[in-house]
Amino acid sequence: MLHSLARRRIKNTLFLLLGFALPFFSQAEDGYKLWLRYAPLEESAMTLSWTNSIGELELFGASETLQAAKTEMELGISGLLGNSDFKGQSPIWLGPLDQLPPADTRALRDEIQSLNDEGYLIYRSDAIEGDPWIVTGKTDIGVLYGTFAFLRMVQSGELNPDLNQTIAIVSEPKIQHRLLNHWDNLTRTVERVQSGQSIWEWFQLPDYVSPRYRDYARANASVGINGTVLTNVNSNALVLTTEYLYKTAAIANELRPYGIKVYLTARFSAPIEIGGLKTADPLNAEVAKWWKKKIDEIYSIIPDFGGFLVKANSEGQPGPQDYDRSHADGANLLADALAPHSGIVMWRAFVYSHKNTVDRAKQAYTEFVPMDGSFRDNVIIQTKNGPIDFMPREPFHPMFGAMPKTPLALELQITQEYLGGAVHLAYLAPLFEEVLDSDTFTNGQGSTVAKIIEGEFSDVQHTVIAGVANIGTDRNWTGHPLLQSNWYAFGRLAWEPQLSSETIATEWIQQTFNAEPEIVDTLIPMLMESREAVVNYSMPLGLHHIMARGHHYGPGPWVDEGRADWTSLYYHRADEQGLGFDRTSTGSNALEQYSPTIRNQWSDVEKIPEELLLWFHHVPWNFEMKSGNILWDELGLHYQMGVDAVRSWKEEWESLSDKIDPERHHHVAVLLKRQEREAIEYKDACLTYFQTFANLPWPSKVEPAEHDLEFYKAIKRHHVPGDPSEQ
Amino acid sequence: MLHSLARRRIKNTLFLLLGFALPFFSQAEDGYKLWLRYAPLEESAMTLSWTNSIGELELFGASETLQAAKTEMELGISGLLGNSDFKGQSPIWLGPLDQLPPADTRALRDEIQSLNDEGYLIYRSDAIEGDPWIVTGKTDIGVLYGTFAFLRMVQSGELNPDLNQTIAIVSEPKIQHRLLNHWDNLTRTVERVQSGQSIWEWFQLPDYVSPRYRDYARANASVGINGTVLTNVNSNALVLTTEYLYKTAAIANELRPYGIKVYLTARFSAPIEIGGLKTADPLNAEVAKWWKKKIDEIYSIIPDFGGFLVKANSEGQPGPQDYDRSHADGANLLADALAPHSGIVMWRAFVYSHKNTVDRAKQAYTEFVPMDGSFRDNVIIQTKNGPIDFMPREPFHPMFGAMPKTPLALELQITQEYLGGAVHLAYLAPLFEEVLDSDTFTNGQGSTVAKIIEGEFSDVQHTVIAGVANIGTDRNWTGHPLLQSNWYAFGRLAWEPQLSSETIATEWIQQTFNAEPEIVDTLIPMLMESREAVVNYSMPLGLHHIMARGHHYGPGPWVDEGRADWTSLYYHRADEQGLGFDRTSTGSNALEQYSPTIRNQWSDVEKIPEELLLWFHHVPWNFEMKSGNILWDELGLHYQMGVDAVRSWKEEWESLSDKIDPERHHHVAVLLKRQEREAIEYKDACLTYFQTFANLPWPSKVEPAEHDLEFYKAIKRHHVPGDPSEQ
Repeated sequence: MLHSLARRRIKNTLFLLLGFALPFFSQAEDGYKLWLRYAPLEESAMTLSWTNSIGELELFGASETLQAAKTEMELGISGLLGNSDFKGQSPIWLGPLDQLPPADTRALRDEIQSLNDEGYLIYRSDAIEGDPWIVTGKTDIGVLYGTFAFLRMVQSGELNPDLNQTIAIVSEPKIQHRLLNHWDNLTRTVERVQSGQSIWEWFQLPDYVSPRYRDYARANASVGINGTVLTNVNSNALVLTTEYLYKTAAIANELRPYGIKVYLTARFSAPIEIGGLKTADPLNAEVAKWWKKKIDEIYSIIPDFGGFLVKANSEGQPGPQDYDRSHADGANLLADALAPHSGIVMWRAFVYSHKNTVDRAKQAYTEFVPMDGSFRDNVIIQTKNGPIDFMPREPFHPMFGAMPKTPLALELQITQEYLGGAVHLAYLAPLFEEVLDSDTFTNGQGSTVAKIIEGEFSDVQHTVIAGVANIGTDRNWTGHPLLQSNWYAFGRLAWEPQLSSETIATEWIQQTFNAEPEIVDTLIPMLMESREAVVNYSMPLGLHHIMARGHHYGPGPWVDEGRADWTSLYYHRADEQGLGFDRTSTGSNALEQYSPTIRNQWSDVEKIPEELLLWFHHVPWNFEMKSGNILWDELGLHYQMGVDAVRSWKEEWESLSDKIDPERHHHVAVLLKRQEREAIEYKDACLTYFQTFANLPWPSKVEPAEHDLEFYKAIKRHHVPGDPSEQ
Repeated sequence: MLHSLARRRIKNTLFLLLGFALPFFSQAEDGYKLWLRYAPLEESAMTLSWTNSIGELELFGASETLQAAKTEMELGISGLLGNSDFKGQSPIWLGPLDQLPPADTRALRDEIQSLNDEGYLIYRSDAIEGDPWIVTGKTDIGVLYGTFAFLRMVQSGELNPDLNQTIAIVSEPKIQHRLLNHWDNLTRTVERVQSGQSIWEWFQLPDYVSPRYRDYARANASVGINGTVLTNVNSNALVLTTEYLYKTAAIANELRPYGIKVYLTARFSAPIEIGGLKTADPLNAEVAKWWKKKIDEIYSIIPDFGGFLVKANSEGQPGPQDYDRSHADGANLLADALAPHSGIVMWRAFVYSHKNTVDRAKQAYTEFVPMDGSFRDNVIIQTKNGPIDFMPREPFHPMFGAMPKTPLALELQITQEYLGGAVHLAYLAPLFEEVLDSDTFTNGQGSTVAKIIEGEFSDVQHTVIAGVANIGTDRNWTGHPLLQSNWYAFGRLAWEPQLSSETIATEWIQQTFNAEPEIVDTLIPMLMESREAVVNYSMPLGLHHIMARGHHYGPGPWVDEGRADWTSLYYHRADEQGLGFDRTSTGSNALEQYSPTIRNQWSDVEKIPEELLLWFHHVPWNFEMKSGNILWDELGLHYQMGVDAVRSWKEEWESLSDKIDPERHHHVAVLLKRQEREAIEYKDACLTYFQTFANLPWPSKVEPAEHDLEFYKAIKRHHVPGDPSEQ
């Protein structure tokens, strides 16, 4: 009787639909594992060879760092080969060269000789009994870096498990200090980051140390990042109190095995705020004494403390100029106290004053270049990639190459303050690569920014590259699943500035998703064109700083209130004649800060790359562009190209719906849809606004604006994450 | 040759130490799964019986709610039995009674007849062919509640898989509206919560809907919570704008299948702030029209919107008194507009004014009781458990039982604003139970708070219980792994106010860890005594409101600045004669607000329970307590007992180190250590302070203070999470 009623039932075998249940509390593909997923390799002849090859793991030497390498190798291999019980023929040897069996190392010694202390060697040869896979270096940290490289190369197919010939892969970092800069406040808000709170749980520290810190360390070490500034450049002296130093030490302890040093931002007025002094004058003896004592205390608590990052006399931060002293006076004060401990000072060149009527783009150069030679050896001047502020595109900063006696650090922004926050896809490696490859001509042709920061043209003791982190407490770290790629890319370029964006993207995709050609081939073009798309739909042809005020999210070309150099009008200079900032000799002459080769090319409106045109020139609306279009129409086409690109990614991404786990696939799909909507808004807001100056018809190949200018001006975004005015 | 060097090697079989690797990116035991872990049952005869019993799952009926029940049953059974391929004899039938095969339901109809719409029946009898497990109810949501109950009972051993006799378990909620109140701001800060940001990602909504919302819904439904107020009572009118209503709708869509309605806080001045009106006067016709239109709009976007929670004319919030109107005028304004949509208004009774010189404990009663009978049927007056503000212990609020014509909601605080935040273990079910069981004597003996809010003594249309959530974005939701129990306990008591704290604790432990007797027997006493321990080491014997100012974390008996009723002195009244607040007829006479039975008992210093002594009496330092000790010594002993309890838990918890996963075990161990340290601080700060009045020797059985009073007064905590002054 019961079974006769089957037609009324929706009958399912138990667990048939368990796939539907998996999203609940599902954790496998929530993005937390970043590019360290170690998902099983696809079945293939090579994978089978790997399974047959990999045998015993033998660790030579003992340290926390080597243990970390061993643990990572176990985790990686067992994940990739989908098996945790290997009995292949070839052992893996992990250990620094001087711990490996001496007889065996003769063959390796030559390979490793010229490497620096962080370099690694991956070696295999049938000349060594048992054909072991050898991952080594001069130091323990080299072995850890080699371990991550080994696992990466297994996934990329770069390593062949079949022993045909001797394998000897060496690599070493070109820059000594490869740092993340966190703009994290002690309140756990994070300036300009939209992926949650600060991962540093100050209220819980030092008692509770989140397991997340170790995963953070692993991710950084996997790409060679070896330092992290925990706190915002808009700083709080509280972090220098003894209480907070112990909290910092607890973080440092977690990061140390992974070769990562901890740095803090030093608030210049700390001697007053937490030291009880009446002044922070860098030439005051009490002040110098206070800093010395404070720094000695720091090293007593954190013996391998890295040093300080300082933003002084910029955007309201205190600094030496409050006492009519120079930046050099300020930096040297701290440097002298840090030197006995081998600590460094990264002093930011990002200074500009609204009292200064000179073009903001010129001010850092004007202020710092004359001080070349007056800084201590352990002071590094940290310079943003461009002269304004992390715009979607800027020319390289003219300070690069202009201070030969001073080490310059390159500061890049991984978080997308002006490129759509954690919502818009913009793979930034092409931006970073563009900066690194920029030829300054300051030491003749080939004087690229990369070579300058690598110290090739000067006798500097320290080389530094810094990336402003896009990391928060969101489960997937970066909010947008695909923006994990920017953290990855920064680290890889910091290690090897000559790597191509595409190589990095390929590696990242292989590890973050998998190596299936459909995935790689679909994602590579999306990632590679994404930054240019953002440039196009927001600030093309050299336009800059025309975003909404405060939170900087979305368009605001009409912004005209507040200090002049925070308006948009200051930068785009639109009028009835044309558009753009004349920075040639007829204007602010910012071009005079560049080498003659650059200056000559860029001052000519016909020779300057069009992508920088409006940065340096005020150009008539009817100026004929290389395409034959007039400026106004060309501008419109760039906005349209940006929108079109995003639209095409939506379809491309959709085509991967059966290749990528549903959780990440859905998340990205939703974000791309929003990005398209907001790209259209940017296009329409900017073009309807600029049209009021151009007085020309809407460009024929550009989709009409959905609303009028007043509509766009009235849009008010609320509580945009990362907005410091809300923090 | 190679192998002869073995002594130099640390040789390990690959993956031998994989256990060490698991904490990396480990997700299994990070607490995210709450009490819905469904970890495999221990091997036992009963587990084997379950495996042999459970067969096909058959769903009768189709709805999102029933699908959710089915999915949960699959997830639960496959987890508990460690198997996803069952072929036992007895099917599970899931479906509402009217969808079950009619012939079979005759036997069930009687059981289910008297249940309300949310009730469930779990039934099994050999009278039905195939011996199916039947989980049913009158409605789909009853089936879902029954599913969670079924899974809970499998874990508790309450259900026996061996069919000895007919099983018929029925349950139904005693209170209609069982709500979480989130004190979450639109900025994603959360007032008084220390477990991360708000889980509501307003900037991402409505585009991206976090998978976390569904897990939140599951957790709530599993304990019968059927409503949630998304926003802080200190409210922001922005949430009522169209833009935010669509964001809210996206959340509502995720919660709906789990029977959870969404509510918002209504800012009384919204007609001015977002409506463009010049007034929010509740008797103004334009204002009434605006609210009607706004509420109609809400229901057009969220058809099952629950209603509003309002904090008006309290702590700076706008309200009807700004226009010389009454709370009834304000509440009825909203109620009239909500009524056509069956929405409700929960109007908070938490009002007190610093301009009012009357004892703060008396003000809500004084203001609201005279209005009894003047509220619309769909207005519920939401009253905190006690007359001050969520102290570790308060007497019940005198409004309970004093407004027979008005439904009163009980507001409990799950987050521990005054009980150690997310750091201190305080299992709150005993506090909640104490309140629910408090006899008001307002309708004779047995007029408990529980019965009053259940509507037993009045003809109310709505019954409500609310708990201020302790939930944030921390991976484990509540910061402290063991404080998940308070979310659980609130829900369970909201469903069944007569449940005992210990029963609830047992269930929670079984599901959150497992049912091993060592775990249950160790944790039960810890949990059960924890709230009393916090009372003892912070505010024993009726002391209250002597915490640090602002963030409310840690001791501050000396707080004497700012408005009087926010100082500590206002409440403890320590002087050379004694300690405590005289609320008898010789003092503020707050006791007059209680029924004669209570009043008579509590006004007598010999008859009042000592745990409330200093709440109602100013007692001489040498007053002889029941123990024979004088007050001063007894006070000291209570502080010491609190410390001693925490200390003992540390050892108890340590004894479970091989029973509980390392991640959660370590986390709790660290927190208990900190709790002990801070309990000692509370003891020493309060006793050194009160000693300056008592002028008596340190009690002999109390550990000496580690520091002097000035030390404790100088402690300044920075950036305490949940402090609204930082938000």
